[in-house]
Amino acid sequence: MAIRYELIKECKQSGARLGRLHTPHGVIETPIFMPVGTQATVKAMTPEELKDIESQIILSNTYHLYLRPGHKLIEKAGGLHKFMGWDRPILTDSGGFQVFSLGDLRKIREEGVEFRSHIDGSKHFLSPEKAVEIQNSIGSDIMMVLDECPPPDADREYIRNSLKRTTRWAKRCKEAHENTKVQALFGIVQGGMFEDLRRQSASELLELDFPGYAIGGLSVGEPKPLMYEVLDYTVPLLPKHKPRYLMGVGTPDALLEAVIRGMDMFDCVLPTRIARNGTAMTSEGKVIIKNAKHKESFIPLDKECGCYTCKTYTRAYLRHLFKTNEILGLRLMTYHNLYFILHLMKGIRKAISGDRLLDFKKEFYEKYGY
Amino acid sequence: MAIRYELIKECKQSGARLGRLHTPHGVIETPIFMPVGTQATVKAMTPEELKDIESQIILSNTYHLYLRPGHKLIEKAGGLHKFMGWDRPILTDSGGFQVFSLGDLRKIREEGVEFRSHIDGSKHFLSPEKAVEIQNSIGSDIMMVLDECPPPDADREYIRNSLKRTTRWAKRCKEAHENTKVQALFGIVQGGMFEDLRRQSASELLELDFPGYAIGGLSVGEPKPLMYEVLDYTVPLLPKHKPRYLMGVGTPDALLEAVIRGMDMFDCVLPTRIARNGTAMTSEGKVIIKNAKHKESFIPLDKECGCYTCKTYTRAYLRHLFKTNEILGLRLMTYHNLYFILHLMKGIRKAISGDRLLDFKKEFYEKYGY
Repeated sequence: MAIRYELIKECKQSGARLGRLHTPHGVIETPIFMPVGTQATVKAMTPEELKDIESQIILSNTYHLYLRPGHKLIEKAGGLHKFMGWDRPILTDSGGFQVFSLGDLRKIREEGVEFRSHIDGSKHFLSPEKAVEIQNSIGSDIMMVLDECPPPDADREYIRNSLKRTTRWAKRCKEAHENTKVQALFGIVQGGMFEDLRRQSASELLELDFPGYAIGGLSVGEPKPLMYEVLDYTVPLLPKHKPRYLMGVGTPDALLEAVIRGMDMFDCVLPTRIARNGTAMTSEGKVIIKNAKHKESFIPLDKECGCYTCKTYTRAYLRHLFKTNEILGLRLMTYHNLYFILHLMKGIRKAISGDRLLDFKKEFYEKYGY
Repeated sequence: MAIRYELIKECKQSGARLGRLHTPHGVIETPIFMPVGTQATVKAMTPEELKDIESQIILSNTYHLYLRPGHKLIEKAGGLHKFMGWDRPILTDSGGFQVFSLGDLRKIREEGVEFRSHIDGSKHFLSPEKAVEIQNSIGSDIMMVLDECPPPDADREYIRNSLKRTTRWAKRCKEAHENTKVQALFGIVQGGMFEDLRRQSASELLELDFPGYAIGGLSVGEPKPLMYEVLDYTVPLLPKHKPRYLMGVGTPDALLEAVIRGMDMFDCVLPTRIARNGTAMTSEGKVIIKNAKHKESFIPLDKECGCYTCKTYTRAYLRHLFKTNEILGLRLMTYHNLYFILHLMKGIRKAISGDRLLDFKKEFYEKYGY
């Protein structure tokens, strides 16, 4: 087996759990947030900086890497780790989410999805087997099965058919994946906002005995209480001794609520994307750095933060960098936001360890302003 | 005196000299290249990275800082060093070069230059006194007098009138500058491509006894041999025991030729600007990273280079970053080009020290391809 999940302890105050995920590129302490490196780079960051802020694992996107530079080139380069200079674990998605997001540019069939590249309109075909082939070339530690993430407004009938196809595709992915000793393949539970369909999806996928399970189809625009409700009944369906990954979640409140419900792994472009728009996550809530009120603000972005950006620069300087479109602004803000989220996850792990995650959440919300 | 130039030795093979420039923010070994940090940041680099590659001094632009964030804000922040987190020396230009480059947006009068901002069209007035006031607020170690850098196609009469005004303005700058113990003010020799006018300009400015002298009006589009000719007769006019700064020069050949003729300090946006366009300076000449031939090139950008970029990444990866417009590409290429130029200057200093600068030049040209 490529990975092994070690359950360290369960929180006495919540459903949260502390774990260690052993992978071919090192051990990950969970719960953990995975910075997103879509195109073989976490935007604006070097691998060394990712390590400085204690990133344990990153996510990269199969769809983007398949189009540019191409998975065969990455394979020739010796795999993604070597290509991008990152020697810690990497998780890749299946490419499905991006392909399904293409709307009119894609057509779903039982065999797979036909789609046109968002870059040059060229025609491609993504099947379960192809998704595995690409991820095998990339050499990620954790691969994801090709699933369909249905639109948030899809009806029950659509979701039911979709989850059944997702199971059939998961099976085909498993059969196509031969490199199981080096790369772990995770299943993805779908089923929308319907409890019985989530149960059906989980039950079908558990039969396939994947080394880890993700919950997909959440954080796609639905109200947060609804997402938490789905987690309430879906998480207990997942095996206790395997890692549980909630796809696409990266706001502090959603991370906390999902950990409390027993999830272990998370990814989201939000912290890095809003950073590049000039929005910082801080211990006092969001800071929009371009706001005029920061013009002569000679204090750190976040006075409680220990990151390089906050230890070195003022809001006035950061505002200047954003007002003048300087690259350093994007760098410093990205660095801070990722540090903030990873530091939050560290705080969460410590709170679980001390059986006080609900207290931690209360304290965090009071300051952050939820 | 804010600065002191210490002449260490003269090369026996050329007119080059090795020196130490003592400033309020540390000692600079000359000859030296100054990376350009136009808007209070060397584009894409942190101060720590600038130190990693042994940047000893950087240049920042008065015109840009005056417009954004404004010199009064920088003063409130405690000066530019503190504002941008750079504790080594800073040289600022006078703003004149940028203002004169505005073309129709500016009007020259004896009192100063009226101009409109390239950002919002707002009206401003730059006089010698204002240029000094702004640089005093910025707190640079070395300030430049407001001069006129005439267009390369200007006739003799224009140049003669212009250099005389430059002298009058230099005098006014000197009179306006009271902070002489902390900030040094350099004069700028003009005179176009006319030997007698260069002689006149130098003679008038030497009377004003500045602690350092620049040669302006070169590297503005004239053929390089003409620039070297002007240096041949202008450098000997400058005091031996004061630093000599050639403005706007940053190609390896021009740096070498100017050092050979006795110049000490240089600045240019070229290494950083072409970096962001995907062009690397290497020991084998220029490398255009987007070229298809680098697609599967799993070798470093420059196999003889010891910089972070060359030690860590392949041309194939750098090409991918540029093809996908990733910020990391701009960072890694900027880092390399600055390292390359600063490393070249280090080699030049060593060659002067060993009385073999002409041999060094020959070896360099053979590899680089001049």
